[in-house]
Order: sequence, then structure tokens, then C-alpha cells
Amino acid sequence: MQHTNLIFGILILLVLIIGCTYIPTPGELDIIANRIHQKVLTIDSHTDTPLRFMDQEYRLNERHDPRKSGGKVDFPRMKEGGLDAIFFAAFIGQGPRTPEGNEKAQNHVQDIIDMIHKVLQNNTAIAELAITPQDAYRIEKSGKRAVYIGIENGYAIGKNIGLIQKFYDQGARYITLSHTRNNDICDSSTDEAGPEHHGLSEFGKQVVREMNRIGMLIDVSHISDEAFYDVLEVSQTPVIASHSCARAICDHPRNLNDDMLKKLAANGGVIQMCILSAYVKTPEPNPERDAAFKAFRQKYTSFDNLSEAEQKAARQEWYAIDLQYPPKLATVSDVVDHIDHIVKVAGIDHVGIGTDFDGGGGVDGCYDVSEMPNITRELVKRGYSEKEIRKIWGGNFMRVFRKVQEYSQK
Amino acid sequence: MQHTNLIFGILILLVLIIGCTYIPTPGELDIIANRIHQKVLTIDSHTDTPLRFMDQEYRLNERHDPRKSGGKVDFPRMKEGGLDAIFFAAFIGQGPRTPEGNEKAQNHVQDIIDMIHKVLQNNTAIAELAITPQDAYRIEKSGKRAVYIGIENGYAIGKNIGLIQKFYDQGARYITLSHTRNNDICDSSTDEAGPEHHGLSEFGKQVVREMNRIGMLIDVSHISDEAFYDVLEVSQTPVIASHSCARAICDHPRNLNDDMLKKLAANGGVIQMCILSAYVKTPEPNPERDAAFKAFRQKYTSFDNLSEAEQKAARQEWYAIDLQYPPKLATVSDVVDHIDHIVKVAGIDHVGIGTDFDGGGGVDGCYDVSEMPNITRELVKRGYSEKEIRKIWGGNFMRVFRKVQEYSQK
Repeated sequence: MQHTNLIFGILILLVLIIGCTYIPTPGELDIIANRIHQKVLTIDSHTDTPLRFMDQEYRLNERHDPRKSGGKVDFPRMKEGGLDAIFFAAFIGQGPRTPEGNEKAQNHVQDIIDMIHKVLQNNTAIAELAITPQDAYRIEKSGKRAVYIGIENGYAIGKNIGLIQKFYDQGARYITLSHTRNNDICDSSTDEAGPEHHGLSEFGKQVVREMNRIGMLIDVSHISDEAFYDVLEVSQTPVIASHSCARAICDHPRNLNDDMLKKLAANGGVIQMCILSAYVKTPEPNPERDAAFKAFRQKYTSFDNLSEAEQKAARQEWYAIDLQYPPKLATVSDVVDHIDHIVKVAGIDHVGIGTDFDGGGGVDGCYDVSEMPNITRELVKRGYSEKEIRKIWGGNFMRVFRKVQEYSQK
Repeated sequence: MQHTNLIFGILILLVLIIGCTYIPTPGELDIIANRIHQKVLTIDSHTDTPLRFMDQEYRLNERHDPRKSGGKVDFPRMKEGGLDAIFFAAFIGQGPRTPEGNEKAQNHVQDIIDMIHKVLQNNTAIAELAITPQDAYRIEKSGKRAVYIGIENGYAIGKNIGLIQKFYDQGARYITLSHTRNNDICDSSTDEAGPEHHGLSEFGKQVVREMNRIGMLIDVSHISDEAFYDVLEVSQTPVIASHSCARAICDHPRNLNDDMLKKLAANGGVIQMCILSAYVKTPEPNPERDAAFKAFRQKYTSFDNLSEAEQKAARQEWYAIDLQYPPKLATVSDVVDHIDHIVKVAGIDHVGIGTDFDGGGGVDGCYDVSEMPNITRELVKRGYSEKEIRKIWGGNFMRVFRKVQEYSQK
């Protein structure tokens, strides 16, 4: 330990003396990057890991091989990857916007939240529910993993605004306003039917105000550009994009263009870099994979008509296709190209990390949570300082989180 | 606020100037006692409140009237009564010591622990699970109630020593080794059949060592005198009596005699004063009540043969009898007579509070959790200092808790 400190001290001195002209060797980079990675609070603002343990067979206290359909997150690999805090998404795919559909969505999200609490109940020695920004720092200090709850898709509340408080009281701290299709709150960036509300609906505006009042973070990932601008207008607090990238680097409607990035910075918000390969880098053609997934989509036109057993079978089929016809993945370097761009356009105070692991996230070099230090390594390589890396890995997100909570307490 | 501080300052000055000869007026007493009560961490180490909410109709976030079979604890009244932290007991009555009986006991305790977690899941804004001594102080600071889990009756683990770790991992922090009858771990102080092991069984000794290893507090309330002495011999850490009184003041086998109190002090442990009236003061004859409870006991010879619905009906019948023929209750002054005695015999560092609310606890003047400041008032009246009251209300218990955790981490 003493020895490592000495080496590190000498390295720092060397870096200071030789200045910008000195390029660290790969070994030195590792030492510097690991040290920073361990020191700063690291938070991943979006994973769909509950999809794994809702199948009941996936135990978060056991280590899994991510390449054997084993999931990309568990507590042992979080520790290996130096990830201190994580948001588990209670995700509901968009289904029918009817009273029955809404009730089903609410119940399903409730089941996921119940299950997250249950998982934590069984792992008090290694993980703990976090509900405030301070919690993550405290839990990190105790050597445990901090687990936050987010809700992916405002469909979870249907048309019942009271559910925001209900879910908040059970620990949920953000709601992604939509998923891949329009809902009663706003338009989605990817609904093939095109815009319906041209931004936020009237109900959506009420939802945003209620989230402000309660202290629930507003997540603009997935929503349409028009909805994004509406949210910034209505919200009295900074917002987050829990898992999105820069459209200038990879042209996908899920990503934010430069104007949006600037407006987000002016709002005081933060974009949490998504490491889902197709949003990071436009994939090269892969006809076999495309055909297999097309067949899959034709077979399962809607998840919502399936029984739980059928949904589970469908998920497993999806994983099997993904393994059989693996995509050519973007790299950690591609990911940091986005970060560089966001920093250039919006500034160092407005970017973070939200992997979307277990929801499609994972690139070459950061395929699962155990490989997260590689992002820090690339940042150090490109000259980011410890202070800047601390902002990216959690400082920026936590600033927004605190602002939102403070506004609600006023 | 400023005003209150000024008044208090003047009072303190007066007390200092006039010294021991000055007897505060009742109004001054209230001010001093309330201030101390708010300042110090207050913990109740034993309540059977889960018996209430296992019936599903008792919501801890709502205020109840304790005299309308409403239960003696809920979060609003905890706040009113300035109680910061509480142990909810996962209680299992002694049943058959067979593989089937053991399995049933384990499952029942698991159900209660699940339900405690569930209650906390639904009340994240006002209460939080606590698993370390520090948690209570932190949660108190955040204005919420800290809820610890204890297991009442080692019968919960049957003959399976591995269950100690399992329950610990879910947050349980003490096990009361027995209840009213002998079990596989040790003899009870109240088994009509008399002693079976003459203390701890061989299995019981292993249990004590395993609890030491894991960091689970050992609770000697309910166990026989012989078992008490055995535990002190085997345990490498201080122990607690989570809810017991002084036998010299009220002669009941559930209470600790002076020799036991001295040995407990030598062990570094703590006795948490129980405020169950019959242990505080031998009840005056009450033939109607006695007859009603005798009939009740004849009707329900064993709870374990009853269905859940029957158990619930039996509990309600019990509450109804208790209301119809109320006992003449001991008083807060009687309670503090015990504390005085324990302090005299064992010292100020070895006494705390464990009410047994919802398990029979409650005296005149401290009938439910909202009336807890009356204990502090009586302590102030008798000349206990703030420092001493801080020890009684939580400091002593937490010292033992820390020691037990430290031993396990070594």
C-alpha cells in the first residue's frame, strides 16, 4: 500500500515536471486510472437489470458470465468494476392506453419495485437502497453497493397523477417520461406513427409540475425533440437524460442534437452517456442479425398480450439471437468521442454515464459492469483530470439530484 | 425557538446557582425533560408490533387509539413520543420441536421479516431499516424512524444453525434464545415442565458461538437462570436482555436477580427495562380478568394447531378480554424504581428500555409509545443527568451493539 502510494507520488511528480509533453506508458495509465476510479463516486444512472431478476433465476449476489446470456450486472461484478451506485429501472414497455392497460402497467411496475426491495432484503450485507444523493456517498463508504430505483416509461402512472407520489414513497427517484412509443404524457422519439401531442400533452405538463413538487427527477431520454423542449420550458428544475448520446456523433433520434445539449446545459441538467452500441456508432450492415430480429418482432408483435411465461420465453429467445448473431460493437473510444463532443458543446458540468446494461447496453471494452474502469482509463488517456472525471462519474448527476430535492423541500 | 433557548438557559443557570436544594416546578421539569428527550437517541429494544400488522389491517403510517384495540406503536405516535429507533420482533411462539414444527416456525419468522421489509418499502419517507448502530443516529438526524429487526425465540432456527446467517443477512440483529417454553437451544424461565437442559444445550452453545461469529446480539430475556449463566460463560461478547426487569423489585422468573445483574454488568451487557405491568409490579388480585384469561387459555391450548384465521380471531379475543377486564397497571414511577435499583446494583452503564409494546407492555403513564417522554420526566425528577439519561435511552444498548459487531469483524 505504502509502496503503491510512493509509486503514485513519483508518477504525479513526473507528470507535473514533464508537463503536457509527457505521455504515460500503458502501465502508468492503469495505475493512475484505477486510483481515480476507486477514489471518485461512480454511478450508472440506467440499467434494466430487473428484467434479469424478474425471471427469478438470476441472483445478484452471484457472479455471472455476460457472454453466456448471464446478464451484465451483479453485485460481485459491480465491486470488481468499481461501480458504487446504480439505478435499476422498473421498466414497462408501452402497451394499450386503456384503463385495463394502465392498471396492468401500474401493477407490473409495482411488481418490479417489490422485487428490487426483495433483492435488497436478501443482500443487506452487500447492497442497500438509496433514496437521497447523500445515500450513495454513505453507502460507498461502508463498502456496499447503492441501489436507486428509476421508472422507465411514464406509462407506469397511466392517467393517475397520484401514482407519482406513491412510487416516490417506495423509493423511485426518476421517471423516464416515455419509452419507444407515444404515451399519455408525451411523444416518443421513435414512434413510427409520428408525433401525437407535438411535445408534452396537457396531462404531461401536469406530470412535470407534480414531479417538480415531489422531487422526482425528470428523465428526458426516449422522448421526442418537441417533448424535450416542452419539458425544459415547464420544469422548474434541471432534468436528466438517464441514457442518451450525442446526435452529432451518431445520428439516431434517441440521441440529443447540439442545440438540445446547449439547452440542457442552460437548464443545469445532465446527459448520461448511453453505451448502447447502436446509439454510439451506426452499426455496419448485419443482414443475418437483422433478419433474425425481424422474425422475432413478427413473432412477438406486442409483449403485452403475452403471459408471464411467454414473455420470459420471448426474452430468452431475444438473448439467444443476440448471442448467435452478435453485432459488431462500438468501442470505449467511440463512447469517449461522444463525451468529448458533449463536453465541447455543453461543458464538463453536463455529462455523466448511464449504460443501459441489460437493456441493450455494452460496447467492446465495456461489455459488462466489471469493465467500467476502461472508460476512466480512456478519459485519463485523453487528458481528463481527476476533478473532471469525478464530475462525469457522478458529481454532475448528483448536483441535479440535489437541486431537484431542494426545490421540492422549499 | 430563540425564546425557548433563553428560558432554558435561565433555568439551567437557576439550577446551577441554587444547586441540589432547588426542586424544579412541574412546568420546568417538563421543559427540561422534553429537551433532553429530544436531544438524546431513544431506542426501544423490544416491541411485538409486527403481530399487529401481520393482520394486514394495521397501517403503521396512521395514528391509532391504543385503547380501542388499536396497537401501541405506529410511526406518527413514535414521532410524538420522541422515539427515534425501535426493534420490531419477529416473534414465534414455541411449538412442536419436530422437523415439521421447525420448518413452520422458520417460515413464519420469514413471513414476518418479509412483512417488516414491505412496511418499510411503503414508508421510505418516514422510516428506514437500520442494521448497524450508526444507522439509528443517521436516520434520527434525517427526521425518520429507525426500524431494527429482532427475532424472538431461537425456535425460529430449529436445529439449523445456518439460519442465523440467513436471518442476519436480511437485517435481523438479535435472537431472544427462547420464549416461554424450553426449546432446542436452552431452558425457558417459565416452562411449567421445569428445566430440560439445565441451561444451554450443546446445540445452544454452538448457537451462541455462531452468533458471536456473525455479530448477532444474544438476547437473554425469557431464558432460565441456569441458561443465563451458561450464556455468559460461552459468549465472547456482551449480551442484552431485550425486555426484562429487576427480580428484587418484582419477584417474577422473567426478571433478573441481583446476582444476575452484577454478572451482566461484569459481562459489559445491558438489561433493557421491560414495562410490562406484571413484571414491574405484582398485580393485585383481579378474579374476573383471571377467570376470563383462564377460559381463553383453555379454549386455545396451543396456537400452533390453529389456522391463520383462527389465530387472528384468538388474538382479537385476547385484546377484547384485556379491554373488558383491564388490569390495574403499574406506573411510570414503579418502572423507574426498577431503573434506580438496576443502577444501584449494576451501574448506570447497564440499563436501557425495551417496552414489550404490543406484546403486553404498557403501564399507567406510559401506555403507548406516544407517552414515552414520561419516563424521561420521571428520570429528570429523580435527579438523573442528561448524560445518564442518554446512556439509558440508547447509549448503553448501542455500546453493546458496537462491541458485538466489532468482535465479529475481527
